[in-house]
Amino acid sequence: MATATERIFTEFKEHSVAEFFKKNQQMLGFSGKTRSLTTIVHEYVTNSLDACEEAGILPDVTITITELDKESGKYRIVAEDNGPGIPEKHLGKALGMMLAGTKFHRYMQQRGQQGIGASGCTMDAQITTGKPIKVVSRYDAKRITCELSIDLKSNSPKVMNLVKEEGNFGSGLRVEAEVGDVKYDKSSFGVYEYIRRTALANPHLQITLNSPEGEKFTFPRSSNAIPPRPVEVQPHPLGLTTNDLIDFAHRERECRKLSSFLQERFVRVSAAKVEELQGMLPDIDFNKKPADLQWHEAERLIKAFSQVKWIAPSTDSLRPIGKEQIEKSLKNILAPEFLAITERSPKIFRGGIPFMVEAAIAYGGGAGKENGGVKTSEIIRYANRAPLLFDNSGCAITEAVREIDWKRYGLKNFEEEPMSVFVNLSSVYVPYTSAGKQAISNEEEILQEIKNAIMEAARDLQRYLSGKTRERDRAERKKAILRYVSQLSKDLSELAGKGTPEEIEKMLVRLIETKYSKQIEEGEDEKEEGGKNGKIEEEEEIEE
Amino acid sequence: MATATERIFTEFKEHSVAEFFKKNQQMLGFSGKTRSLTTIVHEYVTNSLDACEEAGILPDVTITITELDKESGKYRIVAEDNGPGIPEKHLGKALGMMLAGTKFHRYMQQRGQQGIGASGCTMDAQITTGKPIKVVSRYDAKRITCELSIDLKSNSPKVMNLVKEEGNFGSGLRVEAEVGDVKYDKSSFGVYEYIRRTALANPHLQITLNSPEGEKFTFPRSSNAIPPRPVEVQPHPLGLTTNDLIDFAHRERECRKLSSFLQERFVRVSAAKVEELQGMLPDIDFNKKPADLQWHEAERLIKAFSQVKWIAPSTDSLRPIGKEQIEKSLKNILAPEFLAITERSPKIFRGGIPFMVEAAIAYGGGAGKENGGVKTSEIIRYANRAPLLFDNSGCAITEAVREIDWKRYGLKNFEEEPMSVFVNLSSVYVPYTSAGKQAISNEEEILQEIKNAIMEAARDLQRYLSGKTRERDRAERKKAILRYVSQLSKDLSELAGKGTPEEIEKMLVRLIETKYSKQIEEGEDEKEEGGKNGKIEEEEEIEE
Repeated sequence: MATATERIFTEFKEHSVAEFFKKNQQMLGFSGKTRSLTTIVHEYVTNSLDACEEAGILPDVTITITELDKESGKYRIVAEDNGPGIPEKHLGKALGMMLAGTKFHRYMQQRGQQGIGASGCTMDAQITTGKPIKVVSRYDAKRITCELSIDLKSNSPKVMNLVKEEGNFGSGLRVEAEVGDVKYDKSSFGVYEYIRRTALANPHLQITLNSPEGEKFTFPRSSNAIPPRPVEVQPHPLGLTTNDLIDFAHRERECRKLSSFLQERFVRVSAAKVEELQGMLPDIDFNKKPADLQWHEAERLIKAFSQVKWIAPSTDSLRPIGKEQIEKSLKNILAPEFLAITERSPKIFRGGIPFMVEAAIAYGGGAGKENGGVKTSEIIRYANRAPLLFDNSGCAITEAVREIDWKRYGLKNFEEEPMSVFVNLSSVYVPYTSAGKQAISNEEEILQEIKNAIMEAARDLQRYLSGKTRERDRAERKKAILRYVSQLSKDLSELAGKGTPEEIEKMLVRLIETKYSKQIEEGEDEKEEGGKNGKIEEEEEIEE
Repeated sequence: MATATERIFTEFKEHSVAEFFKKNQQMLGFSGKTRSLTTIVHEYVTNSLDACEEAGILPDVTITITELDKESGKYRIVAEDNGPGIPEKHLGKALGMMLAGTKFHRYMQQRGQQGIGASGCTMDAQITTGKPIKVVSRYDAKRITCELSIDLKSNSPKVMNLVKEEGNFGSGLRVEAEVGDVKYDKSSFGVYEYIRRTALANPHLQITLNSPEGEKFTFPRSSNAIPPRPVEVQPHPLGLTTNDLIDFAHRERECRKLSSFLQERFVRVSAAKVEELQGMLPDIDFNKKPADLQWHEAERLIKAFSQVKWIAPSTDSLRPIGKEQIEKSLKNILAPEFLAITERSPKIFRGGIPFMVEAAIAYGGGAGKENGGVKTSEIIRYANRAPLLFDNSGCAITEAVREIDWKRYGLKNFEEEPMSVFVNLSSVYVPYTSAGKQAISNEEEILQEIKNAIMEAARDLQRYLSGKTRERDRAERKKAILRYVSQLSKDLSELAGKGTPEEIEKMLVRLIETKYSKQIEEGEDEKEEGGKNGKIEEEEEIEE
């Protein structure tokens, strides 16, 4: 008889990452019909934008969605761009293999970063309709046409019916996918809203949506400046983990000494800085080979990094939207009564990764969200200029908004204010909570910086509102008291047995207008005082 | 000169799933010091419970946590159980390779399901302290002692210093990991709370925590009954996707005909049912080999499945906590003023996966959460009896609570009520939002069923509260009015020029006690009426 252990382990197996994500499609954003369709558009659009920007091309993207079968939610999605195309050699892996791509290890700001997205769409097509995707890639005077799917067991691409033509076809990529179990709608989680928000944050993009209902929406580019290419940067010593340092050191093939390795591979490390570190760690041999760096030595180096002063990382690698563009877009779309925008200086978080937060608060006018005739607040989230429409509640941006004490800024309750809070996080690496890339993880340094950015805008809003609020509060309190007057006058007339209710009401109103008004104003002053004493928290800046 | 395309694609690389999760540790639950430590304990405890239950052993688990260096957050965690142990052959892969394990493809209710958890802990140890984990595995008269880490580039295990002894050592697994950047605290997100909640839902478990502060907490088992072994089940036809059906059919090696394949591989498919399906699909050849099933045929079969009546899947595969145990645990821990428990019948969702929801509402007494002297509500979430402490806001259980209109049940505002809502989802597959397994994805069928379960308990609560609420409301309104009396009495005395404030106050109070009380009650009746007319939504049950 088999022992318990033998019995249990007969089923021991290894699985591919494609099988894992097939079983856990929700982790890639394929959950719910509307969200699944938006996820597909999101993956193709972000890939097109990244590719165009890296190739120095003004992006022109067209998304065409056709309903094939309403009942089963079957749609055809065609995504077409004028980007650099994908060479034949890499086509299969780029669209039909998970965790393959150009973006994984690079310190460069791009929207994609995992090498999963487009392959996830290929998988979704094949498991919902059984069909491969169709691809046309034009580049370097070639045109490749093929069909493509993933062998899920081995996570490897299957390329079929490949045709290669030579000639001048220009450049660009066209992907056509038939997927099931999706739905096109114009809700705030749908494709239309996704594209609208993408246009808002990418002025150099021209994007067209051909909807299943036969409508054609074109968002023309508002800027003809080709954005500077994203730059690959070296990590900053501050925030590197011991493991990162060991990884870099043991991978090092060129620098022969620890001292030159530190100067060559990380930004802001000068010869003087190395000397300072050597002075702090006299028993570490800075002439040793990087490959010989021991864990306990790396640990001490990391500790020393945190004790010396550094110049902040450069902004070269970051591609924020820019204050001017945010202002233009938000005024254009929301036409708010008041708008405050903050652009923070770049900061760094774990692994020496630079990031930067832009925030805006639009108040009144068209800001906020219509909700049954009442205006409520909304949060407009971006990471690297790609809109985040889902997983709102688990995102660091939402958490930052939640943690702010809005009363300090003259607002009663964030939810009930007619305002839009806009945040864009730019970084060479965005710590998403899941592979679906719709929420930013609550990393302490990022969360705090987002809070700081929003609070900075909130202070401007506070200044604007303080006059307004005082006026409104006064009126409301008076109204509240006057509400009792009529009923009380009747009761008092009855109680006293003399004077008509009308007479008593007049006297009461006069009493309120004089004596009560004074009290109300005094109370208000007291409240203002409290507001002035309350400290607005702001984290210290890193030393430069 | 290289073309843009050549330049871009020089960096094209493939990566292992271990590298992916190293870069995205937050997806495994390694984000934040307290959470990271809780994640490690969670992975080891759930593995121990799964292994013990499968081997038919009453689990006895000890977690020992030692602080090694406060400043860098370095701790040693030892997890020890009396389970079946892991055989030498599988030890490396079970603890040092991602996506390897016994649990991935089985339709069986277990806490773990991905083959990532324990290997994730191994990775965390090596990237935060540079150290391998230490393992002792006892099974089948053997004792294996070794050190273990992961080669992240290839996602393969490295087993070091292995010693194998023969003799009677009993059975069990001991894992020792040194990790950095973590923190032990007794917050509601900490290890202590995790273990307390695990004990609450697993009466057959004996678990001991030796805390870094030298305290020893033992949660003794409250039941000596060995729980029935989890059963592996076949999928139910309802909810299978076309792709699932094709996968099963093309993998089929034994059944030679489509008709026998359907009967043998899925539950609730009788010969009569196959005949019924054949009648609906006369042009599909039910005698063909399963491997020859075409996509369009599978699609039509799936559609036909949704049009016939089925017996619901059996509960054999599910291991709920049970009403009696929930009652015992919640009374014991919360001592609530009122407790309602609902145990729903099993349902199925996509892929023919059975699931079952248990819910309870504890109200008043020790229920709810202390929050600065005020009691507020809390949600206690479980999946397969493993507590979910994190990602609260992104979880289907939280969403279900949020979507319920609590006013219909006589509550004002969910957040401000002194209540605990308890939910346990049991299923052979839980659709987690991420590999960190702390939140259940908002799948429509699951969300609705959780809502139904909570609403069922809420109706009991409503009955209990309706009398209470009326009494309380009455008292509160009176109090609100009486608050004005003192100030008004003074002003009226001044205004009228006669009667002392004290005399007027007495008269006013009498007036309120008589006339106002009556008005208040009338107002209340009106409100009750509205409550009675409101419909309580309840989704239709699936046909059985």
